[in-house]
Amino acid sequence: MYKKMIMPGVMGIMAGLLASTVMFADFPGGGGTASIASANGDAEKVYVPFGKKDDYYLFASGGHSGQMFIYGVPSMRRIRTVPVFSPDPATGYGFDKESKAMLGGYSWGDLHHPAFSETKGEYDGKYLFATDVANNRAAVMDLKTFTVMDMLQTPNTSGPHCAAFVTENTEYLFLPTRFSVPLGNEYAPLDEFKTKYKGVMSAVKFNEQSKKQELAYQVALPPWSFDLSDAGKKGSSDWAVMTTYNTEEATTNLEINASQKDRDYIVLFNWKELEKMVADGKADHVNGVKMIDPAKVNAGIYLVPVAKSPHGVDVTPDGKRFIASGKLAPAMTVFSFEKAFDAVKNKKFAGQEQGIPVLDYNAVMEREVNPENALGPLHTQFDDKGFAYTTMFISSEVVKWNIETGETIDRVPVQYSPGHSVSAEGDSASPDGQWLVALNKLAKDSYLSVGPSHPESMQLIDLSGDKMKVVQSAPVDPEPHYAQMIKADKIQTINVLPKDEKRPNSVWKQEEARIERHGNVVDVYGIAMRSKFTFDAKASRKDVIEVKQGDKVVIHLTNIDLDEDITHGFGINNYNLNMEVQPGETKTLEFIADKAGTFPIYCTNFCSALHQEMTGYLLVSPN
Amino acid sequence: MYKKMIMPGVMGIMAGLLASTVMFADFPGGGGTASIASANGDAEKVYVPFGKKDDYYLFASGGHSGQMFIYGVPSMRRIRTVPVFSPDPATGYGFDKESKAMLGGYSWGDLHHPAFSETKGEYDGKYLFATDVANNRAAVMDLKTFTVMDMLQTPNTSGPHCAAFVTENTEYLFLPTRFSVPLGNEYAPLDEFKTKYKGVMSAVKFNEQSKKQELAYQVALPPWSFDLSDAGKKGSSDWAVMTTYNTEEATTNLEINASQKDRDYIVLFNWKELEKMVADGKADHVNGVKMIDPAKVNAGIYLVPVAKSPHGVDVTPDGKRFIASGKLAPAMTVFSFEKAFDAVKNKKFAGQEQGIPVLDYNAVMEREVNPENALGPLHTQFDDKGFAYTTMFISSEVVKWNIETGETIDRVPVQYSPGHSVSAEGDSASPDGQWLVALNKLAKDSYLSVGPSHPESMQLIDLSGDKMKVVQSAPVDPEPHYAQMIKADKIQTINVLPKDEKRPNSVWKQEEARIERHGNVVDVYGIAMRSKFTFDAKASRKDVIEVKQGDKVVIHLTNIDLDEDITHGFGINNYNLNMEVQPGETKTLEFIADKAGTFPIYCTNFCSALHQEMTGYLLVSPN
Repeated sequence: MYKKMIMPGVMGIMAGLLASTVMFADFPGGGGTASIASANGDAEKVYVPFGKKDDYYLFASGGHSGQMFIYGVPSMRRIRTVPVFSPDPATGYGFDKESKAMLGGYSWGDLHHPAFSETKGEYDGKYLFATDVANNRAAVMDLKTFTVMDMLQTPNTSGPHCAAFVTENTEYLFLPTRFSVPLGNEYAPLDEFKTKYKGVMSAVKFNEQSKKQELAYQVALPPWSFDLSDAGKKGSSDWAVMTTYNTEEATTNLEINASQKDRDYIVLFNWKELEKMVADGKADHVNGVKMIDPAKVNAGIYLVPVAKSPHGVDVTPDGKRFIASGKLAPAMTVFSFEKAFDAVKNKKFAGQEQGIPVLDYNAVMEREVNPENALGPLHTQFDDKGFAYTTMFISSEVVKWNIETGETIDRVPVQYSPGHSVSAEGDSASPDGQWLVALNKLAKDSYLSVGPSHPESMQLIDLSGDKMKVVQSAPVDPEPHYAQMIKADKIQTINVLPKDEKRPNSVWKQEEARIERHGNVVDVYGIAMRSKFTFDAKASRKDVIEVKQGDKVVIHLTNIDLDEDITHGFGINNYNLNMEVQPGETKTLEFIADKAGTFPIYCTNFCSALHQEMTGYLLVSPN
Repeated sequence: MYKKMIMPGVMGIMAGLLASTVMFADFPGGGGTASIASANGDAEKVYVPFGKKDDYYLFASGGHSGQMFIYGVPSMRRIRTVPVFSPDPATGYGFDKESKAMLGGYSWGDLHHPAFSETKGEYDGKYLFATDVANNRAAVMDLKTFTVMDMLQTPNTSGPHCAAFVTENTEYLFLPTRFSVPLGNEYAPLDEFKTKYKGVMSAVKFNEQSKKQELAYQVALPPWSFDLSDAGKKGSSDWAVMTTYNTEEATTNLEINASQKDRDYIVLFNWKELEKMVADGKADHVNGVKMIDPAKVNAGIYLVPVAKSPHGVDVTPDGKRFIASGKLAPAMTVFSFEKAFDAVKNKKFAGQEQGIPVLDYNAVMEREVNPENALGPLHTQFDDKGFAYTTMFISSEVVKWNIETGETIDRVPVQYSPGHSVSAEGDSASPDGQWLVALNKLAKDSYLSVGPSHPESMQLIDLSGDKMKVVQSAPVDPEPHYAQMIKADKIQTINVLPKDEKRPNSVWKQEEARIERHGNVVDVYGIAMRSKFTFDAKASRKDVIEVKQGDKVVIHLTNIDLDEDITHGFGINNYNLNMEVQPGETKTLEFIADKAGTFPIYCTNFCSALHQEMTGYLLVSPN
C-alpha cells in the first residue's frame, strides 16, 4: 500500500502551484459584489460592530518579523503586534534595560510556531510559547500583559522550527531542530556530516514560580531535519511525535537530494522514559546540557515510516491517532497510538536507523486517505464533531474528512497555497468547531498591490454549516507560519499594573523624584504623568536632565497615571533612544551621553490633550 | 470677538477627556448585534469579498514604530507595514547594505505626517513623503514599489513634527521644527533660551531625476514650537501656513507655562519670496545650510493671531481660506487668504514679534464657528460639497460644518478622542467625499484587551448620506498621527523588478555565480531561485559559503525568479543576519565573520513547496 503513493516531481509541483492561481475566477466569492455578499450573509458573519467584541483571539506567528500578530475572530481585525524576538520601538521593547538584555543583542528573530499553555489538554489562557528559528531562542509571553517574560537560548541546535508544542499539562515544550550542525555550532567540514553533525531535540520546562524556562535535557538524533511536532493526549499523553525530512543526509541542493527516498520518518518518543533516564544519570553532558544519545542507550524512541518530506504530524483531540502526510504526496496517513504501542511492545520492527528501532509501517498505519486530485497535504486541524481539516498546499484547498472512516466530507478552495490552518481551540482536547483560518502563503493579487513584496493571506472559513465557506480574506504582514485560536473569555488581562511602592527604582510621589550622581554615573529616578515629566523635584526646571559628556546615564521612569490606556513614551530627540511606560510600570533606560549638546525629551505615546507639552531637555555639557 | 473665546482649564480638559468614555453606551452601534448591523447595512458597506478590491489606499503614519501602515478602504484591512525610519527584519530593511546606510545608524524613528506628491494640487500617486520627529529625518517612498528611496537628515532642527506638506506641484516640502534648540544642537543652558535657541523651518526640494531630497534653505524663527502646516492652493499657491505654540517661550513645565497667553500664531509665509531672497544671496550660512533670518531681512513672513495652542491649520480645497483652532478652545476660526493679502498690502499690523509683523486678527479673520458644547477642535478635512469636518478631541466627535456659513450640519461621536482625521483625497484640490477616517487616540475598551498597552483606533465614517455614520472601527498599532487616503487606481505598482543585466553585482545565470576572495574580503555573487541558492557554480556544493574567521563577507544576491510574489529571504542561523530579495532584485549583505563555526543559511520567506529545502551553510574556519 505504501508504495502506491504517487509523488509528483518537482516540475509537477511547480506546475500545480502556478496553475492554482487559475482558481481565482472559479471561487464563488470572486467577482461578487457587496449585494451578493449580503445575500450570502458573509458580511454579517464577520462584522463586529462597535460595542461588541470578537469571540476569539487569533495569535499568528510573525515569521521573520520576529513578532506575534494578534487578531480578533471573526472580524479578522489586527488588534496588536506584540514584539517577541525583534526590537520594537513602538513599545520600547529591546530599548529599555530589561528587554534589551532579554533579547541578547539580537536584532531579529524568526518566530515560527506559537503554542498556548495547557491544563488537562485544554488551553488555560495563561501563557503563550514561541520559538525563534533564526537565533535558537524560546520565549514565553504572559497573557495577563501580552508581554514576553522570559527568553531561553538553546545551545547545540540550529532552528527550533517546529516548536513549541506542549504536553497535556505543560510539563514540557519540545524544540526539535530544523538544521543539523556539529554540537555547539563548532566548525566541521560538510564531508564529516554523517559523523559530526547532529539533529538535536530540546526538552524545555517552564517554571511558573520563577517565570523562567529551563533546558531540562536534549536528545542527540541523526543529522536529519526535524519538523512539526505534537504531544500526545489522554491515553497517549506520555508520548510525543515529530516528523523528519532529509533522512537522506544530503549536504547540498536539498531540493533534489533530500527528496530521493520514498519515505522519511515520524519520530515517536516517550518523554516520561526520557525524563527517567536523565534522572537515572544516563545522559551525557554536552556544552553544559544533559544529552541522551539513543545510539548509546535504549531511549524509548522509535521511528515510524511516512511518505517522504512530511511537514505535519498532528494528534487527534482524543489522543488516539496521529496524522501525517508526505508534503509532496496526495494522501493523509492516519496512524494509531494503540497500534504503535503494540508494535513497540511486540517489537514489530522493520529495521533500525543509527540505533533507533524502525516500527513496521503496516503495523502502525490505520488508514491512508486519498481525496481525488488533492495534492500537498501539510497540516491537519480538528473540530468538535470528529472531523479533520487538512490544508492542501499544491491544490490550494482545505479538505474536510472523517477521521474514523477516511471519507471526504467537503472541500473548499483557498487563495492560495495554504501552509498551516488553525481551528478554534484546535490543538486542545476539545476543539470548538465554528471557525478555521487558512494561513495561505501566496496571496498573489488578492488585495490592492503594495509593490513586489506581497502580503500573505489568512482566510476565515465558517465551519458551522454543512459546507465549509470562506467568509473573509485578510491580508497579513510577513509571515505567519502557524497560529493559535483561543476563546476570548479565557484570557484575563491586567490593564493597569499594580502600584508597588517596594518595586526597585520606582518613584510614586513627585517630591521624591531625584537625580543622583555617583562618579560618572548619573541615576535619574523620574516620574511620567499627564502631562509632564518630573526628574528632579528640587530643581527649578524639574523636567530637565543635565549631565556631562561621557557620563553613563541611567533613567528609571515610573508612570504614576493609574488609569487604563494612559501610556507614556520617553524619547530623546537625536539620541536614538525611546521607551514606553505603561500605567503603573517602572522601566530603566541606560546610555552613555557621548554626544554633547541640547536634546529635547518628549512623550512619544499620545497621552492627553496636553501630550504635545509633555517635554523636557537633556543637556550634555561638552568635555 | 477674540476675547470671548472660552478656554477650559487643564482640570476641565481632563474631566472632559475622562467623561468622553461615558459615550460608549450612547453610541448607536454600541450594544448592537449582528442583526442590527445587518439592518443598518454597515456590514455590507465595509465588506470587500474575495475577487474585489478596496477603493482607496489609506497610508497611516506609524508614529514611534517609525513605519507606515497601509490599509484598504472601506474594508479597513491592514494590507502591509512599510518600513521607513526603523529597521524591519520582515523585509530585511536596515539589514542589507543600501538600506542600512540609508537609515544612518538609527534604530528607530517617529513617523508623524505623511503627504502625497501633488501635481496641480491633485495627488499624482507617485511619491509619499514622511518625517521623523525623533531623529530629524525626511523620507520619500516610491509608490511603484512601496519602498523608501531616499532619506535626508535636517541639521539645526529638532523634530520636524508637522511635516511633510507639499506645495501644489511638489515644488517644496516644508518641515517646521517642533522643538527649539541652539543651532546645530550645540550645548547652551536654558537660561539662554531667548537668545540662543531657535525654531527652524526647513524647505526641502525633491529631485525626481536623482530621486534625492535636497535641503534648499531654512528659516530661523523665534524659539517657539511649530506645528501642523499646509500649503496654499490656486490663488494662494505661493503661500503656506503653519501654527505655533509656546510663544510664551517657556523652558519648563509646558503643560502650564506654554498655556499662559490667550493667543499664539499662524505663521503665513510666501515661499516664492523666500526662494528669491535665497537666490539673491540674502541667506546666512549656518552649519552648511542657507538660512534666512526674518529678524534681519524682510522675508515675506507674517504672523496671524489665533486662539492659544493650536494644533491644526488647514487650507480649503479652493485655496481661499485657512482654518485653525486653539486646541483647548470651543471654536474653529476661518481666515481669508484674500483678507490676509490685503492686510499685508495695506500694512494692517497689530505689532511685531522679533522682527516679524503681526497682522491684525480682525483684518484676516472671516468667521469663528462655535458648535454648541464642542470642545478641542484639532484638525479639519474636506469633502466635495463644500463641507468641512473637524475632529473634536475633548468632546470625542467629528463635526460637519459649512465653510461658507459656519453652520453646523451634523455631528457624530467617535471612540474616543480623535486627533486627526483624513477624508478621501482630503488634502487635494478636489476631495472625493464618501469616506472619512477618524484617527482616535484612546480606544479604551473598544476591542479585546491585549494588556496595559492598548491599540489606538481608526473609525471609518460614511459621508455619503445626509447624516455621517461610523460604519467600522479598526484597532491599530502605535501610533497613527495622520493619514492620507488616495484613489486605488492612481497607484501603479511594479510587481516584478526588471531583469537588468547591467545592474552592478547582479548575476542572472547560474553558471556565473561565484565567490571571489580579495585579501580578507570575500565577495559572493549569488543567485536565489525556487528552491535553492547558488553561490559558487564551480563548487561541488554550490550552496555553501566557506570563509575564514575575521573575513569581511560581502554577499550580493539576485532573485532570478521573475514571477509575481516569489520573494526569497536570506537568513544565517545564529549570525543575526537576514535580508530579502524581491523578484528581479539584487541586494548586498555585508558582515565580518567574527564567529567561527557551522551556520545554516536558509530562505526566510516562504517561496514554494520546497521552500524548506532552500538552504545552505556558512562555514567559518577558526583562526
